[in-house]
Amino acid sequence: MDKLSSLTKFTSSCPFLGRTKTSSLRTLCTSASPRFPSLTRLTEKATECPVMGAALAKRSGQLVQSFASFAQSVDVVKIHKDKGVDVASSNIEGCPHASKALAAARMAEELASAKKRNDALKAAKAAAHQLSASKPSQAAFSSPDLKQYPVHASGFKYEQFFANELQKKHDDKSYRYFNTINRLATKFPVAHTADTKTEVEVWCANDYLGMGNNPVVLETMHRALDKYGHGAGGTRNIAGNGSWHVNLEKELAALHRKQAALVFSSCYVANDATLSTLGAKLPGCVYFSDSSNHASMIQGIRHSGAKKVIWKHNDLKDLENKLKEWPKETPKIIAFESVYSMCGSVGPIKEVCDLAEKYGAITFLDEVHAVGLYGPRGAGIAEHLDYNVHKAAGQSPDPIPGTVMDRVDVITGTLGKAYGAVGGYVTGSAKFIDMIRSYAPGFIFTTSLPPVTVAGAHASIIYQKTYNGDRQLMQWNVREVKKRFAEHGIPVVPGPSHIVPVLIGDAAQAKQASDYLLERHSIYVQAINFPTVARGEERLRFTITPGHTLEQLEHVVAAVDDAFTALSIKREADWAAVGGRCGVGSKVKESVTPIWGNEQLGLTGPAMLAPRTRRAGEGRKVDAHAIAMARQQFDGLLGSVPDGNALIPMHHGKVPYSSRSF
Amino acid sequence: MDKLSSLTKFTSSCPFLGRTKTSSLRTLCTSASPRFPSLTRLTEKATECPVMGAALAKRSGQLVQSFASFAQSVDVVKIHKDKGVDVASSNIEGCPHASKALAAARMAEELASAKKRNDALKAAKAAAHQLSASKPSQAAFSSPDLKQYPVHASGFKYEQFFANELQKKHDDKSYRYFNTINRLATKFPVAHTADTKTEVEVWCANDYLGMGNNPVVLETMHRALDKYGHGAGGTRNIAGNGSWHVNLEKELAALHRKQAALVFSSCYVANDATLSTLGAKLPGCVYFSDSSNHASMIQGIRHSGAKKVIWKHNDLKDLENKLKEWPKETPKIIAFESVYSMCGSVGPIKEVCDLAEKYGAITFLDEVHAVGLYGPRGAGIAEHLDYNVHKAAGQSPDPIPGTVMDRVDVITGTLGKAYGAVGGYVTGSAKFIDMIRSYAPGFIFTTSLPPVTVAGAHASIIYQKTYNGDRQLMQWNVREVKKRFAEHGIPVVPGPSHIVPVLIGDAAQAKQASDYLLERHSIYVQAINFPTVARGEERLRFTITPGHTLEQLEHVVAAVDDAFTALSIKREADWAAVGGRCGVGSKVKESVTPIWGNEQLGLTGPAMLAPRTRRAGEGRKVDAHAIAMARQQFDGLLGSVPDGNALIPMHHGKVPYSSRSF
Repeated sequence: MDKLSSLTKFTSSCPFLGRTKTSSLRTLCTSASPRFPSLTRLTEKATECPVMGAALAKRSGQLVQSFASFAQSVDVVKIHKDKGVDVASSNIEGCPHASKALAAARMAEELASAKKRNDALKAAKAAAHQLSASKPSQAAFSSPDLKQYPVHASGFKYEQFFANELQKKHDDKSYRYFNTINRLATKFPVAHTADTKTEVEVWCANDYLGMGNNPVVLETMHRALDKYGHGAGGTRNIAGNGSWHVNLEKELAALHRKQAALVFSSCYVANDATLSTLGAKLPGCVYFSDSSNHASMIQGIRHSGAKKVIWKHNDLKDLENKLKEWPKETPKIIAFESVYSMCGSVGPIKEVCDLAEKYGAITFLDEVHAVGLYGPRGAGIAEHLDYNVHKAAGQSPDPIPGTVMDRVDVITGTLGKAYGAVGGYVTGSAKFIDMIRSYAPGFIFTTSLPPVTVAGAHASIIYQKTYNGDRQLMQWNVREVKKRFAEHGIPVVPGPSHIVPVLIGDAAQAKQASDYLLERHSIYVQAINFPTVARGEERLRFTITPGHTLEQLEHVVAAVDDAFTALSIKREADWAAVGGRCGVGSKVKESVTPIWGNEQLGLTGPAMLAPRTRRAGEGRKVDAHAIAMARQQFDGLLGSVPDGNALIPMHHGKVPYSSRSF
Repeated sequence: MDKLSSLTKFTSSCPFLGRTKTSSLRTLCTSASPRFPSLTRLTEKATECPVMGAALAKRSGQLVQSFASFAQSVDVVKIHKDKGVDVASSNIEGCPHASKALAAARMAEELASAKKRNDALKAAKAAAHQLSASKPSQAAFSSPDLKQYPVHASGFKYEQFFANELQKKHDDKSYRYFNTINRLATKFPVAHTADTKTEVEVWCANDYLGMGNNPVVLETMHRALDKYGHGAGGTRNIAGNGSWHVNLEKELAALHRKQAALVFSSCYVANDATLSTLGAKLPGCVYFSDSSNHASMIQGIRHSGAKKVIWKHNDLKDLENKLKEWPKETPKIIAFESVYSMCGSVGPIKEVCDLAEKYGAITFLDEVHAVGLYGPRGAGIAEHLDYNVHKAAGQSPDPIPGTVMDRVDVITGTLGKAYGAVGGYVTGSAKFIDMIRSYAPGFIFTTSLPPVTVAGAHASIIYQKTYNGDRQLMQWNVREVKKRFAEHGIPVVPGPSHIVPVLIGDAAQAKQASDYLLERHSIYVQAINFPTVARGEERLRFTITPGHTLEQLEHVVAAVDDAFTALSIKREADWAAVGGRCGVGSKVKESVTPIWGNEQLGLTGPAMLAPRTRRAGEGRKVDAHAIAMARQQFDGLLGSVPDGNALIPMHHGKVPYSSRSF
């Protein structure tokens, strides 16, 4: 063992690789040498290597001779004199040619005096600084069309740089203009724009079930606001850990039938913090990441510093081929999603669990676009895959061994979409959750969510785990819209979920179509362009809720049909003629089975129990039992609410502002 | 120029360094080789180098011979037989000695067949996999006290690993037990614990001004909730950009007299997203980070991948020495805070701006613990440094050239502390903000804050920028508590801000003191231990608000005095006897001038205008003008509220739940 561990000494055979910190190594690779801007700092560093340094010195010497002479040559002096620059003066740093020659000359000097390197380096730096300090670059902030803000007399041109970065976004059409949309609680799914009098129908929000204005959600929030005020007042560790937070985490663990859960500011933070902590902690961990994973997962994996292997979207064969390249004892995490929000495809959760068990991996499943919407209690696709088992188990919080949801190790979800609130969470084993709680900076060092927000989210979860009708009606409406779009040849990317991606296939047209629908038809659906989707796969992504009326369904189909005609957008047949794209117009017609089956939707039973699209003027259905269940949960903190359909006691202006004190 | 750029070709002289992606390089350095767990993957990779590989092969060959014989030796077989393990069988992988020998043997094999490396590697991997798949490690999940969850029959022992990581926290006393604290809006600063009947005084929350229950905040939120419901329903780009968000950002820009602002889920996210994006974008960027910076800044800088130079806390000389080592044209960012929350020290903002201008750096200032609390309008310490200038400018949003606030390039702040809400933000030039808006994944891919939350935060900012009284009274109360603590020899780490850190100097004692105060005196103040503060500098961190009464001030001083006696905690004189710590009991008594001067506090004017600590039973003062200003802002979205002291119109149970629809 002693002898073998001496193998690690090999690492130090190369002093650079063996002794340089990872973070330094990374910096060296990514940053330009300040002295020789055309080189990375890694190359600069390589001059210190006894092997590489000698080779560099030899070639550098040759180059420098030519450059030094070039910098002093009559031609160069003339060019710069013509431009009003005096090369002979010390302003040589300001000239790109001369300064590069100077850099090369300095590099040669340094290589020649390798033994006194540290001293020489400092002197050179000091000299360079002296030079640039005494002769500010004339170019800094000289662009006339640029407001000189922030004002730095010289040095790097920050504002110009920011302007250039923005120009890139304009150039590739990925610059985002935000539409101002104020969704109205009392007119769901209608919103007003920046002008309060201009109303539009919202067809792309992620408040999938309209829970943002569910009566028991609002009632609970009004009551929580009166009793506990707004902000949490601290991190979870310092004054910001309330009963609301503790109870919500218990609820989420029970929803997914896991041992524990942890709430974050958002599911972006949940994914980022969890994946980065997990990957950094597990020794030699390898991530297997679906190629279509969300940005938050990509960032989390990147921040972990762990090895990442990308597998083709939903391709089990590719995943297995990649998994089998690693020994079983290597810690592995398969990171994937249940519903992919931009294409509506659904991850093969059960099969991924099979592979995970075969190859000794942890499964990390993002159910952000599924929680609230799938399963008999809204726990997501993993629950839906064992629909009847979970339905039969009622509201028991216990794990059900052998179910897909139980086999998934880590599930993350959001409170900000189907639950109509804000925040995200992760669920899993007690020890796993406690480790993330104890080590993730993104959890530890941030103010916790306001009690009022947590209260709203909690009420929403209880309502949805008790009442199945919103989910069913939503899926019914989705089927309706997909059917009607198909009848008009409107190309919908095929998928088994609630996402309705209408293929446009061109960035400019997608933006035009979105603008056209908004201006002509008061329909708001955001264009989804690169980089969110691949170029050529630009789309309008429709989300259809149980709150949309039959009249609105008819309206949107007619409006989109009109936009396709007016803007000459390719229809299903046009895509078929060019061989298809994104599954639209493919020769081999795949049959896609919706996740929600006919029986689950209530279509096979008595007609009166089947979902029925809301009509204009008709109120949205609420479930009294679900309301009662939610209220009951909060009796301890908020006191009980009179039973039945009584008016909900509200604030009544009891804030003692009138007494000029509080 | 062509010739010089050919220098970059040197990088590719070493195929490994030249062609390996940064991310891969980083992974190689941080992860263990799955085949040879005692080596990093970097060393494993080095076997592919024609130079390094030959050297490694030679030494490895020697080692392997000894190990191979060791693994097969009679002794080893005997040891394992005694333990019930049959080494002669294929279970050799399960034995640490044998498996290392096997790894060494494999390594030698691979080195010998370097030319056929790829094929050999794959075969070895497949074989290794076959082996471990057919013979599951008996050790996996064999710990009897560990629930076998999640159940993986073999492979890496995840649950055991999580348990070990948690044990480390228990061992070094840094494991966190969250106290359950429910702050009551109507009894500020009193909260109930997990038991609703047990009430405690909160002395460590960051709702510094009690704005979490300010009447105009709650009124605005109730109204916003009724009209716009709970969640935003999407990202800022897709359905989640409301007038509330747009208006809040305008307000924040005006508060700091900057061109633009951007709101994030939290200031943790604001710092992380901004610093990581900025550092990744600016070519060759170097961060100069104060050694006491908050975790969010440290993470943001780390995630950027940019070079980081740490300067000693508040040490301008050290900062300058480090800045001057870099040429002026190198992009630099000086990242620091105004109020450091754990020690109460204040950054030398003006002097840092001087250095930034001298050396061509951007200044990035975190004002998280200062916004709302300093300056005539609550814009923070940067505003406070030109108190009279900013006061004279009233509510003008225009920059005031030459002021410190104007010279700082980027300011970040929070809505979750003095403003009593949740969320964070960054302000700066229009182009800078637009670049962050356009490129930061942590901003782009996350659900925006709920309109109701944004409404509450906005009302709070307007109230605080209009009314100066809360800030003054808070600072007056801070002075009172510091004075009384000093009279009792309670050691307070000296500082010019509102933070009152009482030095305990021992992790166990700090936890004991916190528990003692909670149990005996119903006073909640969280112990701050390592890693939040250095070992030996453990403390109780008190936050004192304008809402605390004179009786509560007296109570806390007496209670802390009692705790110090009961637990034999070192007092000021004890620290002096051992030479002092954290500025407590130092021989050379530094005189610390509070940021808020006597004149600014109203102490030099008429006595009736001076701040006066609230008495028990006395309501908290509210400012009618500030209420009116806040209401006026929301007329457009919420309609106007009857003027004067009329009751605030509230919800009145108008949710049409009684009609079973919504």
